[in-house]
Amino acid sequence: MKKITIALDAMGGDYGPSEIVPAACLILKDNPDLDIILVGTKAILEDLVSSHASDVKSQITIHHASEIVGMNEAPAQALRFKKDSSMRVAINLVKERVAHACVSAGNTGALMATAKFVLKTVPGIDRPAISALLPTTIQGKNVRVLDLGANVDSTAEQLFQFAIMGSVLAETVGSINKPAIGLLNIGEEDIKGNEQVKQTSKLLSSQTEINYIGYIEGDDIYKGVADVVVCDGFVGNVALKTSEGLAKLIMQFIKEAFKKNWLTKLSALAAKPVLKSLAKRLDPAQYNGASFVGLQGIVIKSHGSAKAPAFANAIKQAMIEVRNNVPERIHAEVGALLKKISGLST
Amino acid sequence: MKKITIALDAMGGDYGPSEIVPAACLILKDNPDLDIILVGTKAILEDLVSSHASDVKSQITIHHASEIVGMNEAPAQALRFKKDSSMRVAINLVKERVAHACVSAGNTGALMATAKFVLKTVPGIDRPAISALLPTTIQGKNVRVLDLGANVDSTAEQLFQFAIMGSVLAETVGSINKPAIGLLNIGEEDIKGNEQVKQTSKLLSSQTEINYIGYIEGDDIYKGVADVVVCDGFVGNVALKTSEGLAKLIMQFIKEAFKKNWLTKLSALAAKPVLKSLAKRLDPAQYNGASFVGLQGIVIKSHGSAKAPAFANAIKQAMIEVRNNVPERIHAEVGALLKKISGLST
Repeated sequence: MKKITIALDAMGGDYGPSEIVPAACLILKDNPDLDIILVGTKAILEDLVSSHASDVKSQITIHHASEIVGMNEAPAQALRFKKDSSMRVAINLVKERVAHACVSAGNTGALMATAKFVLKTVPGIDRPAISALLPTTIQGKNVRVLDLGANVDSTAEQLFQFAIMGSVLAETVGSINKPAIGLLNIGEEDIKGNEQVKQTSKLLSSQTEINYIGYIEGDDIYKGVADVVVCDGFVGNVALKTSEGLAKLIMQFIKEAFKKNWLTKLSALAAKPVLKSLAKRLDPAQYNGASFVGLQGIVIKSHGSAKAPAFANAIKQAMIEVRNNVPERIHAEVGALLKKISGLST
Repeated sequence: MKKITIALDAMGGDYGPSEIVPAACLILKDNPDLDIILVGTKAILEDLVSSHASDVKSQITIHHASEIVGMNEAPAQALRFKKDSSMRVAINLVKERVAHACVSAGNTGALMATAKFVLKTVPGIDRPAISALLPTTIQGKNVRVLDLGANVDSTAEQLFQFAIMGSVLAETVGSINKPAIGLLNIGEEDIKGNEQVKQTSKLLSSQTEINYIGYIEGDDIYKGVADVVVCDGFVGNVALKTSEGLAKLIMQFIKEAFKKNWLTKLSALAAKPVLKSLAKRLDPAQYNGASFVGLQGIVIKSHGSAKAPAFANAIKQAMIEVRNNVPERIHAEVGALLKKISGLST
């Protein structure tokens, strides 16, 4: 396999380098063909590398960056004034082709704004989207959802582009042949859905390159009805965050139910391995690593609160996209589709 | 307490009268001050009443209706051509003040269209909304969400009206003093949220009658941060349905984890009471009964798949709204607010 280099925004996220350096070490151990560039405060990173990474030191380079983007900093502010931030420099390394991809657990808005500014979108794609995998009731099957919050008030053309990108991602990264694309909608309204969704459905129905299966509703996401679910970023973000909230609520209900009396407490002991495996299966860490798709370069966003193993999963995600040349594939697919579909060349 | 009469669309829902008549009997037993009008096919209803309702017969009236609205029938079709449907006649009884409220498990779109047409909205309210309660991590606290799917592409003025209606519902039905109103938004976007949400936030901030606490995100819904969550119907419906899907996924994960091997199967036996209480706590039946708020009359929508106990909860919901004069309260509150807030009188 080809040698891969990934740049990490080592100062981003809630825990910064104290989790990101161990994450790098974790993943480097299993991947001798991987090199990692840690971008951030040199002194801090050197210290952490020498205490954590003795065996994988040769695969690590430290690249100094003098600034850090705050988790609540305004994206425009970060873009304009923090030109030597660990985030910006890590993205620059992708632009300069020093790194094949970059991974950050930092401020999502700033990361998106900076990535868009530095890397630009793939020709034919108006705006990048955030995409991630979610579990389904079908064993071993995940569903890819996009957009998860990069864009609000998406037009039908943009939703159509999300569908193309999702299809390419599912095909390349997920190894799914002719992935089934569903369009998120609601079933309650007189004439179903809003204008953008109806328009998008027409666009998707008018082509044969993408395996469009029609509308799906919120409860279909986790049923695994589709391989890819397309929606506006406002809707997708609410669905994702609501799911996170509900998962927490249910885990709390389970704990409370087991704590009710001495008998239930006793049964909790017996059920401990089961509860552990359940918690593991619901652990967002395993799904950590959202793709910023549609850019001329690979950028993976880790959850801000990711610990080392979760961040390592985000790095893995980046490696898969590098190996599959995702931006190039999206570029080719979009180009081919735009040529075929008349009236769509915006 | 005053005598209450509720009309039931006895033919609606996936199970129709075979669950709805037993539901009526269930609730009548505990409520001697309640009368129920069963609307639908007379012969079928008479049969069911004589076999189920011997002890509460005096509280039941059967009102014949010759048609039934199909669960997948187009709302406009139902509205135009099924003027003697059980749904339409039940709503007519509210309009004619023969019944204080009506409850239906039928086609949501048709129910909303018919209710809007027959009952009209409260002056000052552009469009009715669908509102329901969801559980939170705070023991004993529910959160009221609206709109859950009656309206897509809601304007800021409409979202503002939803906030007023939610506030009144939480105060009257939920007995909450100065209920905290949150506006559903996302935190990812450069400048947070879409135009309608930003505009709504301005409207809500400019008044003091409603206890507006600002933006909340999807994961805040189940945290009980707010008493009322306001959102567009497309977003609310996706959030609700996605939650239903995830709850099913987690219950399946739990079952699978307990079925893994003989040891986990043994622990499932021990944990049985806990699993039962969990399933009960997550059972949507207890939250059954969504309010169509903003109408000049009370209409409660039951889940189409509701069995008798769940449908009985929807009837309970109707009784609470009748006792609290919800439409009149909304009318008064909206009138007062519209007088106070300049520039809002659309």
